[in-house]
Amino acid sequence: MDIREEMLKKAGAAKAAAYKMAILPTGVKNKALLAMADALERRAELILEANAQDLEEARMKGLKRSYLDRLMLNEMRISKMAEGLRQTAALPDPVSQGDWSTVRPNGLEIRRIRVPLGVIGIIYEARPNVTADAAALCLKSGNAVILRGGSEAIRSNTAISSVLSKAAYKAEIPEGALQFVEFADREAVSVMTHLSEDIDVIIPRGGAGLIRHVVENSSVPVIQTGTGVCHTFVDASADFDMAVDIAINAKTSRPSVCNAMETLLVHRDIAADFLPRLAEAMKAKNVELRGCEESRAICPEMKEATEEDWSTEYGDLILSVKVVGNMDEAIAHINRYNTGHSDAIVTKDIENAHRFQREVDAAAVYVNTSTRFTDGFEFGFGAEIGISTQKLHARGPMGLNELTSVKYLIYGEGQVRV
Amino acid sequence: MDIREEMLKKAGAAKAAAYKMAILPTGVKNKALLAMADALERRAELILEANAQDLEEARMKGLKRSYLDRLMLNEMRISKMAEGLRQTAALPDPVSQGDWSTVRPNGLEIRRIRVPLGVIGIIYEARPNVTADAAALCLKSGNAVILRGGSEAIRSNTAISSVLSKAAYKAEIPEGALQFVEFADREAVSVMTHLSEDIDVIIPRGGAGLIRHVVENSSVPVIQTGTGVCHTFVDASADFDMAVDIAINAKTSRPSVCNAMETLLVHRDIAADFLPRLAEAMKAKNVELRGCEESRAICPEMKEATEEDWSTEYGDLILSVKVVGNMDEAIAHINRYNTGHSDAIVTKDIENAHRFQREVDAAAVYVNTSTRFTDGFEFGFGAEIGISTQKLHARGPMGLNELTSVKYLIYGEGQVRV
Repeated sequence: MDIREEMLKKAGAAKAAAYKMAILPTGVKNKALLAMADALERRAELILEANAQDLEEARMKGLKRSYLDRLMLNEMRISKMAEGLRQTAALPDPVSQGDWSTVRPNGLEIRRIRVPLGVIGIIYEARPNVTADAAALCLKSGNAVILRGGSEAIRSNTAISSVLSKAAYKAEIPEGALQFVEFADREAVSVMTHLSEDIDVIIPRGGAGLIRHVVENSSVPVIQTGTGVCHTFVDASADFDMAVDIAINAKTSRPSVCNAMETLLVHRDIAADFLPRLAEAMKAKNVELRGCEESRAICPEMKEATEEDWSTEYGDLILSVKVVGNMDEAIAHINRYNTGHSDAIVTKDIENAHRFQREVDAAAVYVNTSTRFTDGFEFGFGAEIGISTQKLHARGPMGLNELTSVKYLIYGEGQVRV
Repeated sequence: MDIREEMLKKAGAAKAAAYKMAILPTGVKNKALLAMADALERRAELILEANAQDLEEARMKGLKRSYLDRLMLNEMRISKMAEGLRQTAALPDPVSQGDWSTVRPNGLEIRRIRVPLGVIGIIYEARPNVTADAAALCLKSGNAVILRGGSEAIRSNTAISSVLSKAAYKAEIPEGALQFVEFADREAVSVMTHLSEDIDVIIPRGGAGLIRHVVENSSVPVIQTGTGVCHTFVDASADFDMAVDIAINAKTSRPSVCNAMETLLVHRDIAADFLPRLAEAMKAKNVELRGCEESRAICPEMKEATEEDWSTEYGDLILSVKVVGNMDEAIAHINRYNTGHSDAIVTKDIENAHRFQREVDAAAVYVNTSTRFTDGFEFGFGAEIGISTQKLHARGPMGLNELTSVKYLIYGEGQVRV
């Protein structure tokens, strides 16, 4: 089978379906999402069989336990996927919502409304639940979607997407709106990222390597998501208890995710008092600390941090620690090494809080709370397709609104331009 | 001089300045814009001398008159540039404006505010006024800017940008925020479109060839602007006088611009009555008509339209004409051949008007008025940097708001994520 030709066929079918998706009533989309949720639960056995084969192969390849855990499905995880589809059905539909309007002096009435982006390509890795989540969000926002999951989950993803698309088309979703790429071959990605005639945007979800590869090679516009080198700066006036709580939460509540903290900065004036307390709390949570020279003079049990540490997303129970002399140094360090995701300050000083929020260049800038809150659900968006770390189109948690564009509708009575 | 090295230096300096630009008070930016306007008028002689040399060279190269006209500056045109700077100073500053906020059940306060994009690259062609317009809009919206004008206007652009940047830096705009690429060599463009570390977005302004080149080769995100194959569909119920007025305005008021009409579609039921009236009015304005077979059966003086005509942006007094049987055919033709810019329907039928606006896939969809209105000034934005024909980030006329991104500011009192 010619991958290129097949991909062109899929993308063409998605594009044709996108025009119909764009004007599909909310009620039809919601009914379809509920039918898709039911189908997932009804066909759970079929999906689990496929998943067992993927797991067997992954084990034989010797993939590590955390990877196998991400790949693994069970009844409960399938129910959670179904629940996600039902929650998406319950969210407000962004399509056709007006977000601006005016009447011009010549009488022209101008309205701006939200419209779908068109065809969204999602390229993702091991978690098969992305298949259901991403499909639901794209369909609800009136888009057609082309899903390309990782080769290790190919059987699970094929089973899920086949169950979903059958249920969707039966429930009046236009045929072609939900495409799944069943080629494990990498060529599929490289073809997909060049179909700029038919695909409007590609959103990669996965590790830094996948994202970099897509960004560097795609001629279709890309929204970058999910790389997070997040910081917490403990200012001289910080409440120590609060600072330790926030640091522990930001580092240890889920170290593998993108909004987890990777580097803690501490003001020199309090470093000698604060760092031993921090080190003790982190030790109790099995966190390895890697400090700058000054930190290590205070806490000699810390390992030495190298230049590379400052730009590393550990995704693990490791934290780099650095002493800074003032706000200038803290902000300069963050703007140099962050990935534009999430950074926090712990302080009692209102001026420093304000300055930190103004000058730190990131999607989310926190005062006296944990970077772990950068999340579509926590922000109240009801769902998210990822966290954008770029400035174009969308920044921060991307909900349904961020999967839409706009269109201007102008109503006249024969006016012409002079 | 090593172009690559020099470009890296410029981009690095722009990036460093961008952090300062982002927090520059509105008052400073406005004062600087006024000082830049005054400087343009004060140094008009210097600019006109440089322009005379560009014109001389262009004439020797045998470039055509319309091109020379775009290149040519005089006292009046320089005053118009200065006036544009003053108008930009008077516009509201989008930076730091809140556009959404919420308080979450856990007490977290979340605000979303507008922030500059960072460093904007503008790649443009012959019109030297773009140098002043683009610089003003980028600076007012808190961005640093790198301008790369066409080689034919290199002396004019160098003179203008040198006058502007001197005046800007004297008025406390951070040094480095206004960069001009003085290399006529094409290599400068190819280096610039790959500096994704330092440049946040590139906006090409010019002909379709330039835009295609930048879109296909840039690894920096691009906003596509300005290609317009715009349509007017004259429905069966249209008022003939209104339809002729709108068609004449859309085609002839300024045929070289992107919001001018290129194709007129007419409903079969009225074609035999309407087309002769249209042809007469177009003839009086020296418009060449290229018709489909059916149109030519009614108006035999029309030339024959080929397949290529339907996707051609003439930018000239030429109009392609096609008879369609119904709304379906009209919408399908438009969605196949338009560039997502501007399309119009002339009709008395409210259902057809509504359906046309809903189903035509374009940035601006008009009922009973001219496509020529797609323009930042006409929409009331006060200015525009171009018309985006893509769906990502911005669509339609791009004003100051569209040169910004967002940032979430979160204020807590020690909350952690459970």
